[in-house]
Amino acid sequence: MDLKRLNWTDENFQQQLTQLLSRDQAVVQQVEQRVDDIIAQVRADGDAALMSLTATLDQNELANARQLRVPPSQLKQAYEQLAPHLRDTLEQCAKRIDAYHQYQLQSDWTFEDAVGNRLGQRVTPLDRVGLYVPGGKAAYPSSVLMNAIPARVAGVNELVVVVPAPQGELNPLVLAAAHIVGIEEVYQVGGAQAVAALAYGTKTIAPVDKIVGPGNQYVATAKKRVFGQVGIDMVAGPSEVLVVADATVDPKWVALDLFAQAEHDELAQSILISADINVLSAVSEAIDTLLPEQPRREIIETALQDVGALIQVPSLEQAFECVNRIAPEHLEVMVDTPEQWLPRIRHAGAIFLGQHSAESLGDYCLGPSHVLPTSGSARFSSPLGVYDFQKKSSVIHCSAKGAKAVAPLAETLAEAERLTAHAASAACRSQE
Amino acid sequence: MDLKRLNWTDENFQQQLTQLLSRDQAVVQQVEQRVDDIIAQVRADGDAALMSLTATLDQNELANARQLRVPPSQLKQAYEQLAPHLRDTLEQCAKRIDAYHQYQLQSDWTFEDAVGNRLGQRVTPLDRVGLYVPGGKAAYPSSVLMNAIPARVAGVNELVVVVPAPQGELNPLVLAAAHIVGIEEVYQVGGAQAVAALAYGTKTIAPVDKIVGPGNQYVATAKKRVFGQVGIDMVAGPSEVLVVADATVDPKWVALDLFAQAEHDELAQSILISADINVLSAVSEAIDTLLPEQPRREIIETALQDVGALIQVPSLEQAFECVNRIAPEHLEVMVDTPEQWLPRIRHAGAIFLGQHSAESLGDYCLGPSHVLPTSGSARFSSPLGVYDFQKKSSVIHCSAKGAKAVAPLAETLAEAERLTAHAASAACRSQE
Repeated sequence: MDLKRLNWTDENFQQQLTQLLSRDQAVVQQVEQRVDDIIAQVRADGDAALMSLTATLDQNELANARQLRVPPSQLKQAYEQLAPHLRDTLEQCAKRIDAYHQYQLQSDWTFEDAVGNRLGQRVTPLDRVGLYVPGGKAAYPSSVLMNAIPARVAGVNELVVVVPAPQGELNPLVLAAAHIVGIEEVYQVGGAQAVAALAYGTKTIAPVDKIVGPGNQYVATAKKRVFGQVGIDMVAGPSEVLVVADATVDPKWVALDLFAQAEHDELAQSILISADINVLSAVSEAIDTLLPEQPRREIIETALQDVGALIQVPSLEQAFECVNRIAPEHLEVMVDTPEQWLPRIRHAGAIFLGQHSAESLGDYCLGPSHVLPTSGSARFSSPLGVYDFQKKSSVIHCSAKGAKAVAPLAETLAEAERLTAHAASAACRSQE
Repeated sequence: MDLKRLNWTDENFQQQLTQLLSRDQAVVQQVEQRVDDIIAQVRADGDAALMSLTATLDQNELANARQLRVPPSQLKQAYEQLAPHLRDTLEQCAKRIDAYHQYQLQSDWTFEDAVGNRLGQRVTPLDRVGLYVPGGKAAYPSSVLMNAIPARVAGVNELVVVVPAPQGELNPLVLAAAHIVGIEEVYQVGGAQAVAALAYGTKTIAPVDKIVGPGNQYVATAKKRVFGQVGIDMVAGPSEVLVVADATVDPKWVALDLFAQAEHDELAQSILISADINVLSAVSEAIDTLLPEQPRREIIETALQDVGALIQVPSLEQAFECVNRIAPEHLEVMVDTPEQWLPRIRHAGAIFLGQHSAESLGDYCLGPSHVLPTSGSARFSSPLGVYDFQKKSSVIHCSAKGAKAVAPLAETLAEAERLTAHAASAACRSQE
């Protein structure tokens, strides 16, 4: 297979890199219009709209609105009927994910300033969160764990899952995973209609405060449209991995890691960077050797061909310049003494150091969430975490003496901004 | 003046409260279309589009693109020409804001799991942030401090201000505040065109990673449209205060606090809740007494009349139920021993405890940011803080032994999800 090759020393390397990364997120106007219509329909007709859209779009005919809800007994049953080794695996993964996220818990703090005012910050969980779980082929129990556990650790009491059931089919692994994290409220509704229901509420589905979880273009667009009415996690694009490798790593491992990303879908991006042309050639050969035995070889081949690349750089210095330019969702640093490069990495969702740190291990069971910023958004956003399910309030308790001490500052600036009632409100506190 | 009165014991109280809070954020479709056009224009024509839009919308004719940038010398000059007491006040406020935000700094953490894998989280600042500052009447130097200082504390190196200059006029206080926080890059451009330039870049204005700061409907809509390309802070609505008072507080202080909110603009909402009907009457009288002497009485009167309210509840228990229902931007708890109610408050942007803790003091100089979640979004979002200017990366360093220990978990789940290359990538790590 001929993978795209880029070379740092080429005159137009920067343009080629820009081209490789150009993932225009412009939403097709038709999708936006359709999503707006669906949201308006759900706001106007509630459950009736959900049922009619679910019948049309998911070929899932429900006799009445009560059937939107998946009975809690069905979740328990799915869990109980799971093969024991699968149940055990899900539970071990859940435990590891929980253990990692305990470190993200934030707590209140407070201090007293020099004039006797107490200032601080309170951290509280969100009341109610909706988790979108895709249906059909991309229904992943691991995603239920990765989204729900940080919310649980944050202290969110009400966690709701929406999941489409094409032709009425629900993935029992997804239901079992929901049971493991203690979710009892699951609705068989998907698409923009599910997002609208979570944001605005219907008779059957009470509105939530935040919507998280991956979805197709309709779901992503709907989340963006309801942002403000509720919180949302992020607008996710195709998944990507960037591997930086030197001659110390087995080329077959690198090839398999590139495949693991590419097998998601035809838009999933796998990029390898090396300062050693022999590494690039060896991985290229390993790709050719291992590809025929991959059950998902067609998707992998298309993805690698369309959006994959091998990048040659003069030295690792430039490799990490590329890393920061790309701000990858997943970064594998498969070089000798990888820790030494950590301070150089400014932007990446998850950083896997050393050849044993395969992204696939992180996807399921190491602990950190696999919900990560895509399409270069690691420049400004973070992995999904406990902090996404907590919010802060500033807390201010002035003493009479403290208020009097600072009031003149407020008065002066308020006057300068011509906000005279602000000045008066501050001034009365300086009389005490 | 006749303020709207609500009473908890009224049969339809909940509907009346919903009505009072109904702040439909639906963006007028025309605004969205216009904003999309402006963004497309700036992406296509860059500086030329900025200059032509600035000439048309701000009546600010620039001879060439270089003039988009306000010379750093002009910032320094504005600072030096400031009246000494104003300069001193701004600097004292900056120091207090900085001191508070130091407590919000997050740091890296790491731990080793039971099988020898190192797992952790790295915190890094954003590279480059754009700060939108409104022009004209609502150009507040305090907003420059409140937005820029948390970014500085986070470690953001490049901070850029965009501010419209109607008829070429810039507010010297804003420029001086920018100088105080060490901002050297200021562009005289505003509206959706400024947001587009920050998100996509032009020849003169390099693109940023995140855009923060308040603005009108065009600015808010543009921020929402470019979200994903860059990060944004929040979509701010009109400002609000909710005061809970008992008989221990001076009714005049409460009246002035309600005025201070209402004087922002006609949509700014001031609500008072009390379990004591005498308090509601006394504040009502104080409003009538104090209103005539307010320089901004017309705005105050309209705002109080249109969206203000007095709410009577049977006891403070219900007052705090209302608080959580409203999730106010600013909450003043002006009751005896206010601290005891703190655990009951689930949702509020900033909580001011006790009668000396006036919101107006917090607006300028106590320390916490005055950029707070509006329109009930305190249910899911936080005050602007250092955490808005830092992002996290998960860090994973597996040992050979540790990878081998967890690989079977990943293999099992990957097989169950039919992601066979994930399974293969995990499996090769279990051979070591």
